[in-house]
Amino acid sequence: MKTVFSKIIDREIPCSLVYENSGVIAFLDINPATRGHTLVVPKEPAETMDKLSEPSAAMLGAAIPKICRAILKATGATAYNLLQNNGTEAGMTVPHVHIHIIPRYAESTHEFSWRHDPISQTDADQLADSIREAMGS
Amino acid sequence: MKTVFSKIIDREIPCSLVYENSGVIAFLDINPATRGHTLVVPKEPAETMDKLSEPSAAMLGAAIPKICRAILKATGATAYNLLQNNGTEAGMTVPHVHIHIIPRYAESTHEFSWRHDPISQTDADQLADSIREAMGS
Repeated sequence: MKTVFSKIIDREIPCSLVYENSGVIAFLDINPATRGHTLVVPKEPAETMDKLSEPSAAMLGAAIPKICRAILKATGATAYNLLQNNGTEAGMTVPHVHIHIIPRYAESTHEFSWRHDPISQTDADQLADSIREAMGS
Repeated sequence: MKTVFSKIIDREIPCSLVYENSGVIAFLDINPATRGHTLVVPKEPAETMDKLSEPSAAMLGAAIPKICRAILKATGATAYNLLQNNGTEAGMTVPHVHIHIIPRYAESTHEFSWRHDPISQTDADQLADSIREAMGS
């Protein structure tokens, strides 16, 4: 079943287009947190970032800085957040990779801070080993 | 003046290394929101995403899916958030681009939701025009 983003890519439903190339499309979020809130979407319909192919991920990465520059220029914002959610438990609502670019203004209320604790070095050593091992497999 | 991330890249201070290639380094955050909280950092010392060169941004993008896969495999997490802050007003603490990968567990408390309103189509048309125009300049 096609997601709303695949339908936008295929021009079955409209969007406020910001940018498009062969691998990436960017358009305004229809429920913006702030003015200029943009979604950058790889055309490959991967559900989550870990499932995105390396070529698509490279194209997605390459497109981001220039889209950010254009949003800052058009909106006058100077600060902004990028957010990308994977899994419904993490706040993902459409199962197709999308990066939120959210300009921040003096009056903006969104907060992406979190409670944190210093890492345990013993656990960190073991965990970093496990992740490096998993990278190789 | 070198940031703490440039010092990590140059091995002047240690880190719990997760991944490294010629353009990117990834290591565990020393103040994790959750277990496996990782920072992915381009070696190019750009302060914010809009200042990152396209080749560095492509390498950064390409590295992300495989790092995500390895973190999920090593931690057992199935959901996660990516967050990247630009500008101190947006919560940036180290002025060198870094992407947070934050695994989410049943007990995780971090929230990245926001208040939003439907977009005004008149403003959207005008704004998308301005951003597309800015892309070309």
